[in-house]
Amino acid sequence: MRVLCADIGASAGQQVLIQGWVHRIRDLGKITFVIVRDRSGSCQVVFDGRPGGGEDGASLSHESVVSVRGTVVRNAKAVGGFELQESALELLARADADLPLAVNQDPSKYGLDAVLEHRMISLRNPQILSIFRLQAEIVRLFAQTLRSEGFTEIKTSKLIGTGTEGGTGLFEVQYFDRKVYLAQSPQLYKQAMVSAGLERVFEIGMAYRAEKHDTPRHINEYVSLDIEMAFIESEHDLMDLEQRLLTTIFDGLRASCAQILETWGRPLPSAEEVAAIPRIDHDQAKELLRERGSSGRVFEINPEGERQLCLWAEEQHGVPAVFVYGDPRRKRPFYTYPAADNKTMSFDLLFRGLEITTGGRRINHHAMLVESIEQFGLDAAAMFDYLQVFRFGCPPHGGFAIGLERLTQQILGLANVKEASLFPRDRRRVTP
Amino acid sequence: MRVLCADIGASAGQQVLIQGWVHRIRDLGKITFVIVRDRSGSCQVVFDGRPGGGEDGASLSHESVVSVRGTVVRNAKAVGGFELQESALELLARADADLPLAVNQDPSKYGLDAVLEHRMISLRNPQILSIFRLQAEIVRLFAQTLRSEGFTEIKTSKLIGTGTEGGTGLFEVQYFDRKVYLAQSPQLYKQAMVSAGLERVFEIGMAYRAEKHDTPRHINEYVSLDIEMAFIESEHDLMDLEQRLLTTIFDGLRASCAQILETWGRPLPSAEEVAAIPRIDHDQAKELLRERGSSGRVFEINPEGERQLCLWAEEQHGVPAVFVYGDPRRKRPFYTYPAADNKTMSFDLLFRGLEITTGGRRINHHAMLVESIEQFGLDAAAMFDYLQVFRFGCPPHGGFAIGLERLTQQILGLANVKEASLFPRDRRRVTP
Repeated sequence: MRVLCADIGASAGQQVLIQGWVHRIRDLGKITFVIVRDRSGSCQVVFDGRPGGGEDGASLSHESVVSVRGTVVRNAKAVGGFELQESALELLARADADLPLAVNQDPSKYGLDAVLEHRMISLRNPQILSIFRLQAEIVRLFAQTLRSEGFTEIKTSKLIGTGTEGGTGLFEVQYFDRKVYLAQSPQLYKQAMVSAGLERVFEIGMAYRAEKHDTPRHINEYVSLDIEMAFIESEHDLMDLEQRLLTTIFDGLRASCAQILETWGRPLPSAEEVAAIPRIDHDQAKELLRERGSSGRVFEINPEGERQLCLWAEEQHGVPAVFVYGDPRRKRPFYTYPAADNKTMSFDLLFRGLEITTGGRRINHHAMLVESIEQFGLDAAAMFDYLQVFRFGCPPHGGFAIGLERLTQQILGLANVKEASLFPRDRRRVTP
Repeated sequence: MRVLCADIGASAGQQVLIQGWVHRIRDLGKITFVIVRDRSGSCQVVFDGRPGGGEDGASLSHESVVSVRGTVVRNAKAVGGFELQESALELLARADADLPLAVNQDPSKYGLDAVLEHRMISLRNPQILSIFRLQAEIVRLFAQTLRSEGFTEIKTSKLIGTGTEGGTGLFEVQYFDRKVYLAQSPQLYKQAMVSAGLERVFEIGMAYRAEKHDTPRHINEYVSLDIEMAFIESEHDLMDLEQRLLTTIFDGLRASCAQILETWGRPLPSAEEVAAIPRIDHDQAKELLRERGSSGRVFEINPEGERQLCLWAEEQHGVPAVFVYGDPRRKRPFYTYPAADNKTMSFDLLFRGLEITTGGRRINHHAMLVESIEQFGLDAAAMFDYLQVFRFGCPPHGGFAIGLERLTQQILGLANVKEASLFPRDRRRVTP
């Protein structure tokens, strides 16, 4: 019966079997120390002489997969306080010696290009892999919180006949003898499912943007954490929901990923801090940026503006996050619910200097929506299916989407969002 | 404060506010009974005279969205045992009267084409919508069970540079100035993540098959419930895992979806029945089919064969499911681990007459894999990234995938798998 490295202490004095990867080898001739790594962590194994590397007599190589039997002995100097002694090794899979990237080094030694180029190997680095252990926890906590509030998970098609937002920025797919597109978001479908009677839905799925950006905040395929809910009054109901959601996600990560957060050196906002996230409208945001010395007229909130607003929030409210609501109509999609003064019931959440959420109340009246479609110069006839949702009784509703990779990036302080995608896709990269 | 329809009984004698859709109207002139439907269920509202349908004086229409204030009164004849009386209605969104499909009728009155053509409306039918409430529960229980066994959820790219399984059946995507493909499965990536040290991974994501089939068991985009785990010995470890998984999914559905299962009239196998699922090898399966009167030589297990084997399992083992393992090599992908007699360590699970799972142990040795790639006439050079996973120490491992829509179909007894996809994609259908 295999024992995980993290659990050998419970078997002190007994012989156990561990299985994992050879993380580090320290060969002192008469004695060899090997660190074996498995999904739980790692532990030290002591061999008399050099452990056999296989029938061909070659020496043990880093990253080879091994089965080790040994006796658990307390050793305060070993990782975890215990080690295996009188050990015997069986080689399960030999690793070639020419690793393109050392797995057991500080990953900051390698540039992003090398890390992504050799993704199959760089992901073995425990610190790099920890990004995705934490990301899996975000996904779990997101779904769990929403279910506790009566939300139903949906899975909707990523192949759409036409672009809902004007047709730019779409990847084209050859679908048998016609062209379709990869969905930029599940917007239409989550609204449809709200209206179909689920009222509160969420989706965790891929979204695609055929944008030529090459910035530390853009990828062309990302995981969108999408939410839509009925019977709201305004975008403030949605901001309330997002604050509850961030509170449970952050609390949950503190509980299950304490060591990862410590390794990355990024403590998360407390529940009190999340509750203190200020809400300012778009005009106030621009005024604040002028006050903070942005040069010239502030037309929109650019990346530097996002950083400045978060700095302001940290100084004034003790939390590096701020909701900006009430964008002008021309800056939001046609389906955004209008507010007074040519504004909208929309909002963004900026967190640690980066927009991680965009959302708002949506138009739920058929006539108002058709008018808006025409004002935006779009073709109502091409949106027949979408409009059915509103012709036959759609409740007031709204929603938002959080970019999973961006949230992960901002939680851990990653320099580039691509670091938070297992196999990122950008303009140049479609492998591995 | 809004109260859900299912909960009004707790407010007997009090005035409450409910919100939802007008499901049914019975106009008796002096009195009108309206059934209001929300995400929790429905309840009866009694109005004196005809409830106002809006400023234009038009009468109330089915599917309009309303807010109703009324006093909760016990009425044994009403749905749920309570109704609202002395009610006042506010119209939140009027539905046009020309519904393309009645929402409050038995859905079996409509053919599949009508149901899918008018998907935005047909999904409002409570029985149709219940398919997706149950499906959301399958997803929850799948993830929860695997997490409890140490699995980590992953999200991997659906855009791949080359086909891993020979390049047939792939949809082509125009990705900036090059061609890429929609992934048929996360096979490569889940193996990579096992090997990267997570050991046990699962993914819930879309998979694409550019196959021209038009059968009740095929769709071109589906949700694949994918699993991969390290340190297994053979495909039997995977069948053990799938039996544990089905047990917790079925038990969980019995707990959270009892009413849905009853409506569809399909009790699920008990834990004892799942434990009794027989395992037969491919030769035994063919022999059984010959014994059961299949005409001529049995070359492969076709849909009729799948039905016959499940009937046999039900007769002999009391459960309409059977694992068939040990397929011949030529019938399995190149990465399948070979077994004696030109067989493989592979398996399928047939449930109620349909294959819902396919899986097996994978080749984890680099040299063996390269040899297999060549035997299959594939190009090892094009699989450079994939092969890196094996060059540098990959543990013995295997996995399987369950088609979410097929599992839903077989649980509820749906005639066509398309009924279990919110917005199904087939050769002809890319809308809504």
